[in-house]
Amino acid sequence: MTAILCDLGGTNSRFGLAVGDTIEPQSLFSFANDDFDDFPAVLAAYRERLGKPAADAVCIALAAPATPDGAVLTNRDWDIRRCDVARVSGTSNIHFINDFQALGLSLLGVERLATRLLHPGDGTYSKGPRLVLGAGTGFNAAACFPSPAGGAPTVPAAECGHMTLPTRGEEEASLQASLAEGRTRASVERALSGNGLFEIYLWCCRQSGREPCFAKPPEIAAQAVLRTDPDCEKAVDLLLRFFGRVAGDLALAFLPMGGIFLSGGVTRALAPLIEETPTFLQAFHAKGRQSAFMERFSISLLLDDRAALAGCAQWLRSQPVVATS
Amino acid sequence: MTAILCDLGGTNSRFGLAVGDTIEPQSLFSFANDDFDDFPAVLAAYRERLGKPAADAVCIALAAPATPDGAVLTNRDWDIRRCDVARVSGTSNIHFINDFQALGLSLLGVERLATRLLHPGDGTYSKGPRLVLGAGTGFNAAACFPSPAGGAPTVPAAECGHMTLPTRGEEEASLQASLAEGRTRASVERALSGNGLFEIYLWCCRQSGREPCFAKPPEIAAQAVLRTDPDCEKAVDLLLRFFGRVAGDLALAFLPMGGIFLSGGVTRALAPLIEETPTFLQAFHAKGRQSAFMERFSISLLLDDRAALAGCAQWLRSQPVVATS
Repeated sequence: MTAILCDLGGTNSRFGLAVGDTIEPQSLFSFANDDFDDFPAVLAAYRERLGKPAADAVCIALAAPATPDGAVLTNRDWDIRRCDVARVSGTSNIHFINDFQALGLSLLGVERLATRLLHPGDGTYSKGPRLVLGAGTGFNAAACFPSPAGGAPTVPAAECGHMTLPTRGEEEASLQASLAEGRTRASVERALSGNGLFEIYLWCCRQSGREPCFAKPPEIAAQAVLRTDPDCEKAVDLLLRFFGRVAGDLALAFLPMGGIFLSGGVTRALAPLIEETPTFLQAFHAKGRQSAFMERFSISLLLDDRAALAGCAQWLRSQPVVATS
Repeated sequence: MTAILCDLGGTNSRFGLAVGDTIEPQSLFSFANDDFDDFPAVLAAYRERLGKPAADAVCIALAAPATPDGAVLTNRDWDIRRCDVARVSGTSNIHFINDFQALGLSLLGVERLATRLLHPGDGTYSKGPRLVLGAGTGFNAAACFPSPAGGAPTVPAAECGHMTLPTRGEEEASLQASLAEGRTRASVERALSGNGLFEIYLWCCRQSGREPCFAKPPEIAAQAVLRTDPDCEKAVDLLLRFFGRVAGDLALAFLPMGGIFLSGGVTRALAPLIEETPTFLQAFHAKGRQSAFMERFSISLLLDDRAALAGCAQWLRSQPVVATS
């Protein structure tokens, strides 16, 4: 089977071609969505780039609630319709899946993806459930429960970004109140996202009495990594404390003895500080009498651009064979 | 197949006999563990009561980490060994499962169990995942993800009681600090348990300046239900606020569109207040912009003594057929 795989974000569309069980390395291309009017146009550009190969299936992972007929992108005014994708791709065997479920599915073959170990745990890549956490535009998680019978894994949908932000102590309670202002409450992704980093930074500036110098989350992350601004450093430290705590809570909910994988744009931007400072891991392990238990989880950074594409390929492998037009 | 099912708690052992797909109503008996020296003695008493029926299998749900060879009960000095159970029951086809996984498995047939609807949601008992939450000696949860192919459901293990207790506002932050005293932090089950109710009650008494009058969680629950003591009422109100919030957080993690079921001794003791006061449901729905989404979940009380036994029967149905001695 030859399948077009697509990881469709608000900013970029990333593509790959799966031939049998392999995603062809030379088939990987990324396009800036701004350069195109709509999704069929970018899909057509990708097919053109590859010399218009025949495809038996298309699987599109996207950050939007998908129906069998398509989806409207969350962060871009694009209405993706099955009929348009069929027209451009030449196949009616088209699948829309949630981007986090794609990441969750990719964990079944995570050994083949680029990861960096943060904490070894009991034994890396054991056969238990795995969990991917993503902090970026928003926050979410996906668990991958392998089938005991060797069939398709169970990768439940989740909305972990909307959970309550768990705080401890007076400083964090004051920050929680600030994040909740005008919104009735503070969710997990109110802190664990690019916007969250910016809001935490503004709060740190109010606390220190200094004027905010940076207006964009990537600038704040970069200043913190370079250790050139105390408010940026403090903001990142608070964010990583929340991130470690939430990751620990979700580890207790899903018991991913097969490993935890951290993904997303905020994770990438802060990777040096996740690795070099103790904040994230300390907060992850800080579960009182359970801290020895928490040490058992292996934790890695998932830094592979192809993860969602690998999840799309896994999705197609788990489907019953269907006739294509 | 005829199977002996057992729900083995610290205080009582509850038994039933499954013949084919049915748990025989006249086979249900409960024994006080205090009346027996060890588990084989109580199992022998049950078999005696039924006239020593031949059994093809035994499945025991217990609140302890189980291995294939047995388990040591968490709340009682009983070492349950496969060889002893085989000797008394006359079969070597013996299964030990976790009590919460048994509850999770029982959700597949929850229509046949005694429940009471708290909030209808989108449509009760739809086909999605289901979630059981239990507050009693401790706190935990189990999700039941039905298999799309109609095979055995996925019921992952969890340790939700050890997650961080999520607090909001100054009053709760002060209570959190009190619950964390001498323990480095406050977990979910530090509040959502019988002992948790007692500790919250002591904190309420310190706040009101009144001397504590009650020393046992059931007394505190009973006073709150009768509305005869303001500190007991306040303590229960705080506990139900945490319970609703944590239930909402776990609903976002597991997305149980097939329904949420509240179980456990604390839940039973407080059932009138869960039903008659808005506290639990308000806290469950209070997820800011997601409150309309939260309304979609159906929530019920699971008040059926046979739930864990039904989960044992479900477990045996999902097992490959094995030869018995």
